[in-house]
Amino acid sequence: MVRIALAQVNPTVGDIDGNTAKIIEYIKEARDKGVDLVVFPELVITGYPPKDLLLKPSFIDANRRALARIMCETADIAVIIGFVDHSNAPFVSNVYDISALPKRTLYNSAALLHDGRLIGIQHKMHLPNYDVFDEKRYFKPGTENRVFNLGKLKLGINIREDIWVGGHGPTEKQVELGAELIVNISASPFYAGKSRLRRELIAMRAQANKVPIAYVNLVGGQDELVFDGRSCVFDARGALIAEGEQFEECLVISTIDGAPIAPPDEADRAEMRKNEEIEEIFNALLLGIRDYVRKNGFTKVVIGLSGGIDSALTAALATEALGAHNVVGVAMPSAITSSSSIEDAKRLAANLGIEFKVIPIVEAVDAYTRMLSEEFKDTAPDVTEENIQARIRGNILMALSNKFGYLVLSTGNKSELAVGYCTLYGDMSGGLAAISDVPKTMVYKLAAYYNKLKGAEVIPHSIITKAPSAELRAGQKDTDSLPPYEVLDPILHAYIEENRSKEEIIAMGFDAEVVSEVIWKVDHNEYKRQQAPIGIKITPKAFGTGRRMPITNRYNG
Amino acid sequence: MVRIALAQVNPTVGDIDGNTAKIIEYIKEARDKGVDLVVFPELVITGYPPKDLLLKPSFIDANRRALARIMCETADIAVIIGFVDHSNAPFVSNVYDISALPKRTLYNSAALLHDGRLIGIQHKMHLPNYDVFDEKRYFKPGTENRVFNLGKLKLGINIREDIWVGGHGPTEKQVELGAELIVNISASPFYAGKSRLRRELIAMRAQANKVPIAYVNLVGGQDELVFDGRSCVFDARGALIAEGEQFEECLVISTIDGAPIAPPDEADRAEMRKNEEIEEIFNALLLGIRDYVRKNGFTKVVIGLSGGIDSALTAALATEALGAHNVVGVAMPSAITSSSSIEDAKRLAANLGIEFKVIPIVEAVDAYTRMLSEEFKDTAPDVTEENIQARIRGNILMALSNKFGYLVLSTGNKSELAVGYCTLYGDMSGGLAAISDVPKTMVYKLAAYYNKLKGAEVIPHSIITKAPSAELRAGQKDTDSLPPYEVLDPILHAYIEENRSKEEIIAMGFDAEVVSEVIWKVDHNEYKRQQAPIGIKITPKAFGTGRRMPITNRYNG
Repeated sequence: MVRIALAQVNPTVGDIDGNTAKIIEYIKEARDKGVDLVVFPELVITGYPPKDLLLKPSFIDANRRALARIMCETADIAVIIGFVDHSNAPFVSNVYDISALPKRTLYNSAALLHDGRLIGIQHKMHLPNYDVFDEKRYFKPGTENRVFNLGKLKLGINIREDIWVGGHGPTEKQVELGAELIVNISASPFYAGKSRLRRELIAMRAQANKVPIAYVNLVGGQDELVFDGRSCVFDARGALIAEGEQFEECLVISTIDGAPIAPPDEADRAEMRKNEEIEEIFNALLLGIRDYVRKNGFTKVVIGLSGGIDSALTAALATEALGAHNVVGVAMPSAITSSSSIEDAKRLAANLGIEFKVIPIVEAVDAYTRMLSEEFKDTAPDVTEENIQARIRGNILMALSNKFGYLVLSTGNKSELAVGYCTLYGDMSGGLAAISDVPKTMVYKLAAYYNKLKGAEVIPHSIITKAPSAELRAGQKDTDSLPPYEVLDPILHAYIEENRSKEEIIAMGFDAEVVSEVIWKVDHNEYKRQQAPIGIKITPKAFGTGRRMPITNRYNG
Repeated sequence: MVRIALAQVNPTVGDIDGNTAKIIEYIKEARDKGVDLVVFPELVITGYPPKDLLLKPSFIDANRRALARIMCETADIAVIIGFVDHSNAPFVSNVYDISALPKRTLYNSAALLHDGRLIGIQHKMHLPNYDVFDEKRYFKPGTENRVFNLGKLKLGINIREDIWVGGHGPTEKQVELGAELIVNISASPFYAGKSRLRRELIAMRAQANKVPIAYVNLVGGQDELVFDGRSCVFDARGALIAEGEQFEECLVISTIDGAPIAPPDEADRAEMRKNEEIEEIFNALLLGIRDYVRKNGFTKVVIGLSGGIDSALTAALATEALGAHNVVGVAMPSAITSSSSIEDAKRLAANLGIEFKVIPIVEAVDAYTRMLSEEFKDTAPDVTEENIQARIRGNILMALSNKFGYLVLSTGNKSELAVGYCTLYGDMSGGLAAISDVPKTMVYKLAAYYNKLKGAEVIPHSIITKAPSAELRAGQKDTDSLPPYEVLDPILHAYIEENRSKEEIIAMGFDAEVVSEVIWKVDHNEYKRQQAPIGIKITPKAFGTGRRMPITNRYNG
């Protein structure tokens, strides 16, 4: 009977010393609790993803020294831990131009440590190189699926993608080699619904191979990614016997032949999933905001409050993530801003309990009007004047950031960012775009979920029900320029997440002209997105690292 | 005796129809000139790099239809052409979560067409996945090096990286299979000195394998990349027998057993190389600017002219690339701006013959001062006030862009961008950062080269000799915050291009404190660079796609 602990920890990329100290603390805790084997996630020593830090030989060496330090802390306990292994062979041989390549061959690896000794190393066999993942940029795949002896137990270790590969994948091969327990160490980023897919898959692998599987996932926010944890252990019949929290650091202790956790009733499941998705997204955003702010050394954030739903949700999320005393809301009315917008912003701030400032921008608008009067004398007002206002607001938020060390959270949603309904250097200004992967229709769901969670109309009803407007022109409504969001969002989903063509989307039943215009807008606003702050990924296909489009691009399809 | 034409063409990414029309024109021209075989670059039908357009099935289909159209135009002539081949097998089998993957397996391929028929297809064997390249994200490598019969000629075709691989690479294998001519089709982006490396490599391969090699490279700018052409043919002794222009579209016709071009004297070479490097960087920047502007449908650019060397060089480059009538210079003096700065900007604009505007920003500065007076009442002036000015200027340039359809060229150099000596949403505003991969010390060399080229002090002597200053604070000099550029640039080169550690750089002889501070600044300004406009790559390691660093990053080494 093996007593196993899943150390679902939250490291910081590059903080090798800090991560190592944390790892050693967890080893001690596990030992104190009588654990035989404690398992840490993929690349926990470096944090994930370390990206081009991996091209620095000094970084690889520091990670190896950390592994050696950790090994010294494994008296009377076994540890499985993710690190970067290397051989001194060059990464790619015989290539003339190697300036851009790692000097040494690197492997994404797991070490099995026991009682001060290195028992063995397993290299990752299957390297993800799609969406946000670039592992073939750095690593060579392993060539051998190994099985290790830990006392009398035969143990197979594999790494994230390895367990997704079926047919005759690493798990099958390790079981053939006699593995009695499979441990998968992972750094699997969140999108809505993914943790359920993961559990289903692992249950299936356990059942099909008649082997218990312990799966440990990283937790924490890292730039655009959120790792959601929810580590788990399944027994050889595919029954769940232990599970970690989602979005929280924890040590999950179980015994491999422990009693299964009762699964929920089938009838409850569909309803659970629907609620679970919004709850999951909400919590992912909290962790993404909190970790970005904290890991980058900020305490407070500042948010422009327009009186609209996007900035209201962003402020609510920030308040939940950081505490009300760490959030500053700023209304920046112009001559166009309605008094109800300022009132709504004020009421929201009061409900949240955050600091609230009003900085009118009328003087700056007037200054620009005068400064540009000669240049613009024969022109009619257009989007230029709207953008000037948005950029004045961006400048004010950045000034508060510069002066007081606040991080600016920008407030745009995914639907806007997709069609470029936002001002570069204006409302797009900020260090983190908290909800830039949340489609507008989901912004409403999250706002409703939040109010329900708080048991009060914290986000005022008037904000939720008003017609969306950028309020950069008198009487402006989003629907002046865009189809209703109930139409826009499914088109965007088909185009961006499913890579469907214009013809296919029209064939789904949408108006041809609307589809053409939406696609045109998505394609022609790539330049804006490439200058946007990073946003927190909550869908399978977010803008950012996971979607790499040319700016210069004449494809129209 | 085969008469071969290298069609060194400039396609546009995504413009499958336009590229196909261009290809067909070149086939006709080659046929008219009695050519037997005309060779086009890698992925010429789609343009390179097509990036995530490759994930759209409709895009792959459109590229296949274009190939079929081109095939119909090959009466009495043979054509080798780059395209995306596919099989209907899924890209990665057995992966549970395939939402982000191409639906079909794709190959980066060359087709050999002759007289209306498809003779054969060669898949690229070696897929670059480093620096700016992500080919393993999209393509599977080929599995077979083939040789084709074209009349009596045995022909081996390989694709870019394939010819860089030595030892027993594709070229060697194809020669073993009887290839009497090797054709390499390529889309090889520029950096300074690379075309020389390329020619040396191809000469060596030809000589070692005793086989003539025809190498055709793409030409043109595509976002951050410039393809420099300089296609070439080497005979079986490794002697150059034909060569295309650098940075220009052309059709290079030769016969495989033609007379070698006389190489330059050894004595002249070293001097040639030094001049060549500056000249080639200058020309790469011209093409990069011209193609970004034109391919994105712009005609005119607007540039903020500070009276400093960076904006002067940017304006000079834009004038050379686009013509003086397409460049607008704007001086935006504040109360701090010296009269000599405005005079220098004015003189530069007059020398270049470009439109010149002066838009003072004093009123806006005053407006912000008043608007923020309450918030800032107990604070001392700092970088905040400096950034406000820079952002006012950014807003003005963007307003001119929005109103008149000009593209804003930002003017920051690589040294500044590296250490964050620039204002996000301020002087970093723009669609293209023309010189953001040019270190400051090279900015001076390019300015001197330009004046020599024009035979006049077009960039005024006073601009070249003044001490660099951001002029955002009275009496400010770059050296107040930064080491001299002669010290800074080599540190940056060691850290960024060579991935050296702090200790290694100090051991090179630099002051430890200076090195630590420079490295700290580089690491802590990653967030700015990730929101910067794209810049034109001219070094082996540019910021942008080729350098992927986490923002949240505590590594200090």
